[in-house]
Amino acid sequence: MIRPPDDDARSAARARLDGLAKPLGALGRLEELAVWLAGVQGTPSPRPPESVAVVLFAGDHGVTARSGPVSAYPREVTALMVREFLRGGAAVNVLAAAHGARVRVFDLGVDDDLDGTPEQVRRHKVRRGSGAIDVEDALTQAELDAALAAGTAIADEEVDGGADLLVPGDMGIGNTTVAAALVGAVLGATADEVVGRGTGIDEAAWEHKCAVVGAALDRAAGCAGDPEKLLRVVGSADLAAMTAFLRRAAERGVPVLLDGVISGAAALLAERAQPGSADWWCAGHRSTEPAHHWALEALGLEPVVELGMRLGEATGALTALPVLRAAPLLLAGMATLDEVLG
Amino acid sequence: MIRPPDDDARSAARARLDGLAKPLGALGRLEELAVWLAGVQGTPSPRPPESVAVVLFAGDHGVTARSGPVSAYPREVTALMVREFLRGGAAVNVLAAAHGARVRVFDLGVDDDLDGTPEQVRRHKVRRGSGAIDVEDALTQAELDAALAAGTAIADEEVDGGADLLVPGDMGIGNTTVAAALVGAVLGATADEVVGRGTGIDEAAWEHKCAVVGAALDRAAGCAGDPEKLLRVVGSADLAAMTAFLRRAAERGVPVLLDGVISGAAALLAERAQPGSADWWCAGHRSTEPAHHWALEALGLEPVVELGMRLGEATGALTALPVLRAAPLLLAGMATLDEVLG
Repeated sequence: MIRPPDDDARSAARARLDGLAKPLGALGRLEELAVWLAGVQGTPSPRPPESVAVVLFAGDHGVTARSGPVSAYPREVTALMVREFLRGGAAVNVLAAAHGARVRVFDLGVDDDLDGTPEQVRRHKVRRGSGAIDVEDALTQAELDAALAAGTAIADEEVDGGADLLVPGDMGIGNTTVAAALVGAVLGATADEVVGRGTGIDEAAWEHKCAVVGAALDRAAGCAGDPEKLLRVVGSADLAAMTAFLRRAAERGVPVLLDGVISGAAALLAERAQPGSADWWCAGHRSTEPAHHWALEALGLEPVVELGMRLGEATGALTALPVLRAAPLLLAGMATLDEVLG
Repeated sequence: MIRPPDDDARSAARARLDGLAKPLGALGRLEELAVWLAGVQGTPSPRPPESVAVVLFAGDHGVTARSGPVSAYPREVTALMVREFLRGGAAVNVLAAAHGARVRVFDLGVDDDLDGTPEQVRRHKVRRGSGAIDVEDALTQAELDAALAAGTAIADEEVDGGADLLVPGDMGIGNTTVAAALVGAVLGATADEVVGRGTGIDEAAWEHKCAVVGAALDRAAGCAGDPEKLLRVVGSADLAAMTAFLRRAAERGVPVLLDGVISGAAALLAERAQPGSADWWCAGHRSTEPAHHWALEALGLEPVVELGMRLGEATGALTALPVLRAAPLLLAGMATLDEVLG
């Protein structure tokens, strides 16, 4: 059961906004963001999220080892980027440092042992890679259970550690293929409706990617109403962990700022598993991936920014973070119209 | 003559972006913003603007004293809000404090003597109010000249004081009526194409506002190619000063982050007066005013954020400021793909 955000706090914040020194509604989406924060923080005087925890879920995908390319990069890049997150030179590191957020990365299914990285990074590893979802299940039931447990445990750790905003991010060559399959399966879409260019593939690779997703959608037939089964059949360990992470955040009543198509797919599954969860989430941005568009529409979430980004790593969410933070400052710091009129 | 931004710096920044540890173009608009900053700062390694000067141009408008309402608020609100800017309780103050920008307000044409406010605020006052542009000229030639000189002087002061980003903002009941007339006159649009809801007027007031702008467009017939004449005939002192301010910023080679429909109208006039100026400007946001949409399209500027804001006061630009600042941090702080591949 998901507890709904605090409606009294939302109403009180709305009333205060309407009395501030500005035309009604003139701050647009910033007003909606302030009201959302009031609800999820359970107070008519919300504060900007300060303890922001970015959690990166890394994994490889069996589809990248198959007959044709679904990505512009080889799967080895996943492990290399995990190492870069730890060195601090990835886009997510730069944005997190700029905005005062902390970053943790977890290997759920990287096809590399990641020797020499901290044990912390690898302690939730479920397996190397995943089954190629066009021809076989991504995970066994035991692997799925382990991935879900990992996501739940990671969310609990962050919440118990005092995080007041969770930001899921992803790293994994091939993960937009899996996300497209999951979104398509839930929404009953065809492959060409949900498959995008990912890292920037050409027309021939896009057609191959559509064929892979089309085969995955055939394999997923009949599972649309069973999010956990979808994750096992056409998902992956990283997507499953992120889904459980989002669900657990909603159960714990801690707000989430969503990133791109990977977190959009996980959010769609988590909302279907526990309706009402999406009230605890804010869409940070809209990426160029069509599956992200459809997932946000199905979730009823409007993104804060839309900047043509398609990098993942929580970079879209972090770009939106200062906009989200400005909203409660306006609510708290502006004079009322009555004060101005004296 | 407007010196173009540094094309070598732009190319070098573009080349560095293409070598960073991400798919080509995956940071979307953030990459364009980094390249823009490289050009206007004249360096392949641009820095986030730190000395950000918000300049608010305040004025009243003769149209508000006429037969029907064009705003949801009486003109007295203009002076009251100028006083609020000085007290620090307006939306612009909150956002400027959050993002480390300074705010100055200048009375160009407020219909109030603003007794008790610092002389600094009033030293550029041109007149009280303006002519009602549906029936008479907004300004005399001498008043126009004074307003243009004020805008130029204010820009010079900020640039000489070390500002590395200028942000124009507005306050003035009735100013969206004037902005709509100016944009409509330049672009040859009809009143109903450019007139919006401003502070949130109802249908009847919108129709009256359209009639006012339609009459102003008739009065401006034949002036489309003469920006200064337009400012005299259907403009105002605050709009004229802002136009000169933007033009001077481009002449001095200092970048500008534009706000909403008022700065959009001023930018359109300044670009027509000195083609090439717009290369020095970045559109912070797109407001809900139709004239803003058309002005940005004519200027070839794509806004950073689009959040349904319609407050003015530079609030849209300031909301976009942290997004703009993130762009050069990514350019400077990310590892290259070669570094990641080892």
